[in-house]
Amino acid sequence: MKNPPSLDQLIAALKVLPGVGPKSAQRMAFHLLQKDRAGADKLARALDSALLNLRHCERCNTFSEVPLCNVCADAERQQGLLCVVEMPADLLMLEQSRSYDGLYFVLMGRLSPMDGVGPQDLELEKLLARASDGQVQEVIIATNFTAEGEVTAHLIGEMLKAQGLRVTRIARGMPVGGELEHVDPGTLAQAMYERRNLA
Amino acid sequence: MKNPPSLDQLIAALKVLPGVGPKSAQRMAFHLLQKDRAGADKLARALDSALLNLRHCERCNTFSEVPLCNVCADAERQQGLLCVVEMPADLLMLEQSRSYDGLYFVLMGRLSPMDGVGPQDLELEKLLARASDGQVQEVIIATNFTAEGEVTAHLIGEMLKAQGLRVTRIARGMPVGGELEHVDPGTLAQAMYERRNLA
Repeated sequence: MKNPPSLDQLIAALKVLPGVGPKSAQRMAFHLLQKDRAGADKLARALDSALLNLRHCERCNTFSEVPLCNVCADAERQQGLLCVVEMPADLLMLEQSRSYDGLYFVLMGRLSPMDGVGPQDLELEKLLARASDGQVQEVIIATNFTAEGEVTAHLIGEMLKAQGLRVTRIARGMPVGGELEHVDPGTLAQAMYERRNLA
Repeated sequence: MKNPPSLDQLIAALKVLPGVGPKSAQRMAFHLLQKDRAGADKLARALDSALLNLRHCERCNTFSEVPLCNVCADAERQQGLLCVVEMPADLLMLEQSRSYDGLYFVLMGRLSPMDGVGPQDLELEKLLARASDGQVQEVIIATNFTAEGEVTAHLIGEMLKAQGLRVTRIARGMPVGGELEHVDPGTLAQAMYERRNLA
């Protein structure tokens, strides 16, 4: 006695999702087939559509359905500022913060030797070409403040400074509304080291 | 600035999977698009194939690509024994245990008032018809020993006993290889209550 082939294939296929092992794949397959066949169909269609339509923006490397994404195509944005982020989600967060009106470059990842992600896996040459277009005055590195994000920031910073570009890093410090009692010691230490003169 | 529509649709579609919220859906979408486009395509094909090919066995209600599943179609199995389980995975586990050569009925769920699953959501009439076919001598209830599985077992047991059928329940007790020191007190208590005479 075994599962029908199309059920086993679905369970195996669900395991391509990150964080999904054999048990959850089985639970997902049963849920879709038993409780949400419409959702399963919607998922299959969405996968097809995304595979068909999504490419990388020629300029900033983020996901886009058109050669040049909305942000890159916007002539009103400051052409001299280029902000480097790890993922499209980071770009969206920065846009929501309404603190930046320059352009972006999305690495689509970060250096992560543990996961086998080295410099060759990031589009560093594309970034280099983009940052050296003659228009960019300042490259702002906004990778995460994780160990991996910091190493990535260092590598990119060295690479771009070698081209004579001005390179900055977004600031570390206390979160807005943060209380000293509740913030982690590392953040508090950074906020102390990077203290600024009052205006 | 927003995500491209096909990306947002994929993230939304991934949320149909149980246990997947907005953050994991986004992570899954990026992973598939960036690292495993072949896997995404395989998943879309597997969903289509499963939706197209998988139905319920007419007799035992498990997933099957044919009207009558392998087990039900096997004339060598004991036709007088019917074992009721919650899910196809439970059936597979029993088959692996090589302890049973009768037939099955798969509820495809369990009573779960918290999740809005009532008696009308289980195929109880299909079970009743199956168990009352005149061939079945004994119905063995093998739902889980969780609160929900126990309530389900009670309901089914009462329903089938009212038809004059012999109804049994698989035993509770110590696991094979289990040590008293490490087993949970509830299991140990049950093993004590349900103790048997030595042969």
